[in-house]
Amino acid sequence: MAKGNLVVGQGGGPTAVINSSLVGVIHEAMANDIYASLGERGPIGDIYGMVHGVEGFLQGDIIDLRKQSRSALETLRYTPASALGTARYKPSKEEFVKVVEKLKAMKIRYFFYIGGNDSASIVRGVNRAAKELDYNVYAIAVPKTVDNDLVGTDHCPGYGSGARFVAAAIRNTGRDTEAMGKYGPIRLMEIMGRNAGWLTAATALAREEERDAPHLVYVPERPVTVEQVVEDVRRVYEKLGFCVAAISEGTVDPSGRSIGEDIAPKEVDGFGHVRKGGVTPFLSELINAKLGIRARLDNPYYLQRSFVEMASPVDQDEAYRVGRQAVRAALAGAKGVMITLEREAGPEYYCSTGVVDVEKVADQESKMPADMMNEAGNFPTQKFLNYARPLIGGPLPKLARLEMIRV
Amino acid sequence: MAKGNLVVGQGGGPTAVINSSLVGVIHEAMANDIYASLGERGPIGDIYGMVHGVEGFLQGDIIDLRKQSRSALETLRYTPASALGTARYKPSKEEFVKVVEKLKAMKIRYFFYIGGNDSASIVRGVNRAAKELDYNVYAIAVPKTVDNDLVGTDHCPGYGSGARFVAAAIRNTGRDTEAMGKYGPIRLMEIMGRNAGWLTAATALAREEERDAPHLVYVPERPVTVEQVVEDVRRVYEKLGFCVAAISEGTVDPSGRSIGEDIAPKEVDGFGHVRKGGVTPFLSELINAKLGIRARLDNPYYLQRSFVEMASPVDQDEAYRVGRQAVRAALAGAKGVMITLEREAGPEYYCSTGVVDVEKVADQESKMPADMMNEAGNFPTQKFLNYARPLIGGPLPKLARLEMIRV
Repeated sequence: MAKGNLVVGQGGGPTAVINSSLVGVIHEAMANDIYASLGERGPIGDIYGMVHGVEGFLQGDIIDLRKQSRSALETLRYTPASALGTARYKPSKEEFVKVVEKLKAMKIRYFFYIGGNDSASIVRGVNRAAKELDYNVYAIAVPKTVDNDLVGTDHCPGYGSGARFVAAAIRNTGRDTEAMGKYGPIRLMEIMGRNAGWLTAATALAREEERDAPHLVYVPERPVTVEQVVEDVRRVYEKLGFCVAAISEGTVDPSGRSIGEDIAPKEVDGFGHVRKGGVTPFLSELINAKLGIRARLDNPYYLQRSFVEMASPVDQDEAYRVGRQAVRAALAGAKGVMITLEREAGPEYYCSTGVVDVEKVADQESKMPADMMNEAGNFPTQKFLNYARPLIGGPLPKLARLEMIRV
Repeated sequence: MAKGNLVVGQGGGPTAVINSSLVGVIHEAMANDIYASLGERGPIGDIYGMVHGVEGFLQGDIIDLRKQSRSALETLRYTPASALGTARYKPSKEEFVKVVEKLKAMKIRYFFYIGGNDSASIVRGVNRAAKELDYNVYAIAVPKTVDNDLVGTDHCPGYGSGARFVAAAIRNTGRDTEAMGKYGPIRLMEIMGRNAGWLTAATALAREEERDAPHLVYVPERPVTVEQVVEDVRRVYEKLGFCVAAISEGTVDPSGRSIGEDIAPKEVDGFGHVRKGGVTPFLSELINAKLGIRARLDNPYYLQRSFVEMASPVDQDEAYRVGRQAVRAALAGAKGVMITLEREAGPEYYCSTGVVDVEKVADQESKMPADMMNEAGNFPTQKFLNYARPLIGGPLPKLARLEMIRV
């Protein structure tokens, strides 16, 4: 075990549990303080936090994480968003050299970055530059993303909580739509996920009965024509009297063009003025033109990645564990890897942790496999539901309906 | 006590607790079944539900509420949206006569309508028509609205749960914005309330420290110039490095024009193309033009009135109680009244129930009094916070921040 200081940062879009991973790193790093009480120094000295990621680190914006109150850290485990501040900065090769020089100057041997694909590429960059400069750094990526699009791991911390939120959201808005009847029978909910439909597909976990929302689910991995969407909505509406659809912000048509952005309104005959701003405003206008019903919109925007009151306990626990495991892996000599979650076989859900080379993770995207969506491309399959259900940490509260016993 | 059947309906926008009131009516109506077990018939015979309100009732769409499973009713207390289906229908004078004729034909003496201003006007219409036709009906309005805009009551069932949701929503999105830093430092959250700012103001309950969102709150009762909003945002942003504002959908400028709708983009110098669709898209473009920062948007749309997982326990209890009290009031001979909540004096929050003449409630709107907003018109006062805090049913979960101890 190399002796040295530690630095940790957070990158990319925040989630409801990314601070659980941060506290996991800090707690595990502090766990070696037991050496100190034995009169011996542990391998980890100071514990630093980069404010606004590697960008802040380059500018010298660094805080002391050993001096935080223990009770504040405990509360931070259940506090949404990135407490260190996040960044979307992509350092150049020269800047990675500067990062490593700074690590060297600060006697830092342990480098942790909590985030998604871009964060993995930062760990890769630090790892490569450290090798070139022949400075021994244990750089580890800690996975995080509501999009669930990291390769090499069963799923990503942050996803389960986002999934629980969007499932609850569509279930509630579904009841609202059903109650509105003819005063607003069609509702479209737009969900985050530019290239991957994992989060949008998770809305399907809300559906137990035929009347339950969502009735239709569209994801970027399965292109659909706008005509199919309108026809799907019409069919559900005619059968149930209302219809609620979950639509990924990145839904594309078969030519690969983004619906609502690349597809210009004028290309679709028979309707005129359209509000800009994405797939659901576009489809709402189209449905109005074709079916004569104004589809209402829902969009949980930033709530889906930050609504901590709906965080999945499984997700909170796993986010904390990958943080702790990152430190253990580094102390065991791992470098240039991302911590992974590995689902164990058996009747009860459990994930252990593992590692994957960041070279395999950086700049890659994990997308929903074909057999997780049905043939029509408008609803997830049972295989997806089996995959996603344990991640939201238990069922949503039970709801009821009246029996329609006519008099 | 007149013997007769009972009918209950739900009107207007659903809430997270409107079914609690429905179950309250059913439970209290069934409570008089004790007479039956004593070999004596109680005053209330059949218990009917109007499907989609008075509109469905006129069309004969009526269900039997005595035949519902007891356990389903128990779950329904905690199920969002209007289980009977809602309506926005305003009957004509002739139709009110038809309603009363139908009540007479079905031997209905007890008429309950759960809803807001429009629902109170339906109870008024039924009450007036019944008098004219000399048919004895106990017509009672049961209050409900997330907007909190009914007169004659301390507050409205539905409001406390909506308030709890929007406070949590802005708190979470506030942490997300703070974490984003320069990658998205300004966020605007649009909240329901066309003419009344009660729900938007409730976001202020989330704020405990200077950095906590919301930093600015705008309501329809306090017109503001768009220039003031931009200047307020600039000031907060310069001080904190980020800014989160809660803005009522019905915010107007001093001339009474709706910001983002009546105020055309071209009237405001220096910026060009604007997305249509309300106050926050408009202000986002304006802030971008004036400050050079694209303000990001949040809009909880239908979630704010349906997100039952965030329902206030105080609100759930009060919604249930006003339902029960409506039946008790009717059995005591009240007619043409709405049940009210009356806050009792004393250190502990408690509301008892009362009644108010529907003639005083129908078509009226309760707005925030002037002393519930600060002088600048950009944040609620302590008086408002004291009023609203007990309604959300306990504090939101505690959050933490790191101490910025620079190294």
